[in-house]
Amino acid sequence: MITFERRPEDYRHWRLAVDGRIATLTLDVDEDAGLVPGYKLKLNSYDLGVDIELHDAIQRIRFEHPQVATVVLTSGKARMFCAGANIYMLGASSHAWKVNFCKFTNETRNGLEDSSRHDGLKFIAALNGTCAGGGYEVALACDEILMVDDLSTVVSLPEAPLLGVLPGTGGLTRVVDKRKVRRDLADIFCTSVDGVRAERAKRWGLIDDAASPNQFPDLVRRRAEALAAGSDRPPEAEGVKLGPLQGEADDTGLRYRHVDACYDRDGRTVTLTVRGPQQPQPQTIEELLAAGDGWWPLAMARELDDAILMLRTNEPTLGLWVLKTQGDVQAVLDAGRVIIANRDHWFVRQTVGLLRRTFARLDVTSRSLYAVIDESSCFAGLLFELALAADRSYMLSFLEGEGPAVALDETNFGLLPAVNGRARLDTRFHGDEAALAEARDLAGILLDAAAAEDAGMITVASDELDWEDEIRLALEERASLSPDALTGLEASLRFPGAEVLQTKIFARLSAWQNWVFYRPNATGEHGALKLFGSGTRPQFDWERV
Amino acid sequence: MITFERRPEDYRHWRLAVDGRIATLTLDVDEDAGLVPGYKLKLNSYDLGVDIELHDAIQRIRFEHPQVATVVLTSGKARMFCAGANIYMLGASSHAWKVNFCKFTNETRNGLEDSSRHDGLKFIAALNGTCAGGGYEVALACDEILMVDDLSTVVSLPEAPLLGVLPGTGGLTRVVDKRKVRRDLADIFCTSVDGVRAERAKRWGLIDDAASPNQFPDLVRRRAEALAAGSDRPPEAEGVKLGPLQGEADDTGLRYRHVDACYDRDGRTVTLTVRGPQQPQPQTIEELLAAGDGWWPLAMARELDDAILMLRTNEPTLGLWVLKTQGDVQAVLDAGRVIIANRDHWFVRQTVGLLRRTFARLDVTSRSLYAVIDESSCFAGLLFELALAADRSYMLSFLEGEGPAVALDETNFGLLPAVNGRARLDTRFHGDEAALAEARDLAGILLDAAAAEDAGMITVASDELDWEDEIRLALEERASLSPDALTGLEASLRFPGAEVLQTKIFARLSAWQNWVFYRPNATGEHGALKLFGSGTRPQFDWERV
Repeated sequence: MITFERRPEDYRHWRLAVDGRIATLTLDVDEDAGLVPGYKLKLNSYDLGVDIELHDAIQRIRFEHPQVATVVLTSGKARMFCAGANIYMLGASSHAWKVNFCKFTNETRNGLEDSSRHDGLKFIAALNGTCAGGGYEVALACDEILMVDDLSTVVSLPEAPLLGVLPGTGGLTRVVDKRKVRRDLADIFCTSVDGVRAERAKRWGLIDDAASPNQFPDLVRRRAEALAAGSDRPPEAEGVKLGPLQGEADDTGLRYRHVDACYDRDGRTVTLTVRGPQQPQPQTIEELLAAGDGWWPLAMARELDDAILMLRTNEPTLGLWVLKTQGDVQAVLDAGRVIIANRDHWFVRQTVGLLRRTFARLDVTSRSLYAVIDESSCFAGLLFELALAADRSYMLSFLEGEGPAVALDETNFGLLPAVNGRARLDTRFHGDEAALAEARDLAGILLDAAAAEDAGMITVASDELDWEDEIRLALEERASLSPDALTGLEASLRFPGAEVLQTKIFARLSAWQNWVFYRPNATGEHGALKLFGSGTRPQFDWERV
Repeated sequence: MITFERRPEDYRHWRLAVDGRIATLTLDVDEDAGLVPGYKLKLNSYDLGVDIELHDAIQRIRFEHPQVATVVLTSGKARMFCAGANIYMLGASSHAWKVNFCKFTNETRNGLEDSSRHDGLKFIAALNGTCAGGGYEVALACDEILMVDDLSTVVSLPEAPLLGVLPGTGGLTRVVDKRKVRRDLADIFCTSVDGVRAERAKRWGLIDDAASPNQFPDLVRRRAEALAAGSDRPPEAEGVKLGPLQGEADDTGLRYRHVDACYDRDGRTVTLTVRGPQQPQPQTIEELLAAGDGWWPLAMARELDDAILMLRTNEPTLGLWVLKTQGDVQAVLDAGRVIIANRDHWFVRQTVGLLRRTFARLDVTSRSLYAVIDESSCFAGLLFELALAADRSYMLSFLEGEGPAVALDETNFGLLPAVNGRARLDTRFHGDEAALAEARDLAGILLDAAAAEDAGMITVASDELDWEDEIRLALEERASLSPDALTGLEASLRFPGAEVLQTKIFARLSAWQNWVFYRPNATGEHGALKLFGSGTRPQFDWERV
């Protein structure tokens, strides 16, 4: 079982050093500490384990080091920043593993941009040595790319010519969409094994600046300070320590304090239950800080994040996730009010950021998501985002008496945008201003199934008599469909309307990469990825498809 | 060898009837007239041959029947509009065939929307019977969808649940992006085998209107007339007849009057040469109409269109297309001036439309495209779009004396938008207004290699001494790379920036479909597509990827 919790004192591949407003994350991969046996992580190449540490380190900087405004990513090896994802690891991995690995690394890259955009945390890639493939894709996710200008250091995306696959972590998209490299120059860059040195890299827009080896540390320091000067991260704040999650995992599911995942292996489904606040909640900033990592929104988000990653990686055959909530609607709305009232405080902002990134993982999870809204549920405010992220939702209605209710609040209108950068309600109603205004008017009102259906907030309302059969049939039916068709279908329906870089990466670049990964020209017996390093040349089927 | 020229008198599957402002295209598939042996086209299902006829019919309406303002697509069979792409054909086809088939049908659908958007030609899908899968995708490409409201007629996209593949012709994208169906309702619709009858279809936004069988013809006529009333297609104009192309094809290449394709099978490349005007060109509308289908822009576009389709379908291993032009730069600029001066005349508009759609085929062609600009070339104005569509361009520079030149004109600034709806120059410069203004200032000026390189119009300038080696090496290098990696790479780099429905279909939905088509869950021995109709249930690998 692959786990995603890490402690800085156990890092094998990264060193985190904090110096006032600037943190330095140094990549110094232990080549003998691969996550699974069978390959050596030479030349600062990475596998999932290296990236899990990076994810953990960034998370700790966000919460435990709030005074840090700029993070410098650099290398602890001589003349080599990072050689990218380890090729032998990729060559030996299953299709599903490769795809899931790329998804997680993509989310970590997106996470850098998310913190830069929303939370004032800036990133500099300080390329003190050659930076190839996935290494350059990490750099592309940073706010600035600085590069040492010597005779040997290059940046490159050699995946296509060298391995017969694509740069799998957003490289193609970010080169043209973010860096705005002209597309014919990008074509040369992405089909060249040799890469590009500093002068041309700067001219083409592949990096922001370069300096000689002697002057490079100065350049990095200067740019890091400049970015820090523009940041609103709080210089004097004390951090909030992220303690262990204390989750339990066994063959029947995952159990945390606020989140459970319960497996039904025969039905190929998992029921993922998120519980609302169960105790009186802190109201003031002082109380929030005193609660620390025990504050419900933060604790819940960390657990849900971990559960999503664990399920994706360890339970690929549980293809349908039933999203449930349990608790008191008013308690969730109260928590939302505290968040909204204190949204400018750094700790609340970071917690909102984690909620945003965690819910956004659902948007790109290749599992069917059904929200089931039953008697004990509390799909309100920020937890209603779970229902909005789902592919569809079912809600129980009572024939008589007060049935379950859902409710919106201010958190549903832009605080927690999906991967496409828009509120899920905005996407749901295709930006229809009238529909959105009506939805705003409903904020704070408890909606039973009929009202929720009328308002377009749920997919299906079902009364007590039909409820059990309806849910059972719905789950059985979905779980019987082709997993691949569902993955393509869900990826196509989840992001209607305008696209952004991140959805282009997930829903387009990843789709091409999935296809390329699966083709014999890459992973067949004579494929380029398979044969890399063997001394044998790949043999291609020359047909263009 | 598959050919794409058709004559209405030879149609096997469509009937075209023109009645004043309204044309009716009736689908009445001859089930015994499949394009290749091995399947029967039952239930008005289609194969590539049926779609080639549709493409031809629409083309003839555009040019030969300029008075037609609305095209009604309907069925000649009882209770069945169209069952979609023939499943046995798909099940028996190679991966490359399926993908190429979907590309052509996609382009035909996009062509309907292109003519609606730019040229006032409107389309109504008159669903006088059940409309499933690809049949509904044809309807989605029309301006309005009308449906008979009876007990049996449904619309459906049953590909995922029935066949384990995606609706491959834009269905998923158009349902949410164009029809703005709420995405959870779309999820139900696209996973249901049974489909949706008129009342719900209208409520969900899947159709525009419905009527009982008795009242349906009236409804169709009323809507067709309403759309025609808003059209600026000329009610009194006489058409221009599209005569045969008189091309020749053999194992060495294709030869037309203005276009040649010359194969280098060892080098896996084809040189596609477009010749500029070779005789004095018509200047007035009367002269243009007298020239008819012999007018150079129209004749050249028809030949190039045919060549692109022939190469894609019949020569999949020629992975690199070298785009060349031959002729006089001033003659091409002259032709551009005549187009611009008469751009509001219906015949010029239609010719521009064909140029636009033909060049747009290059944008989505899964072949590497290199423009080679040498001594005899005339990459000017509308032919410069070929260089802009290419993945990169090489231009010969002379050490002394006047070398080859390229030139822009007004046709390069919005008349011929790429698939993403933007001028190729706009995409090239990422919408940078300053760069575009500089480019505008260059219109009409002959640019040699140095000037073109300075202006960012070409990728590589190479002098006489290096030219031959540089081109030879460039072609060899490209032709040596993995065809699949190149397909994914080119699809990712060609559309930086904002997306539109059409690029989402090509670069995203198609990528997912490629992957799904290639997976055993669809096309393996126990796959759903393979086993359809056999009575045997598919066996899925349940792993979600």
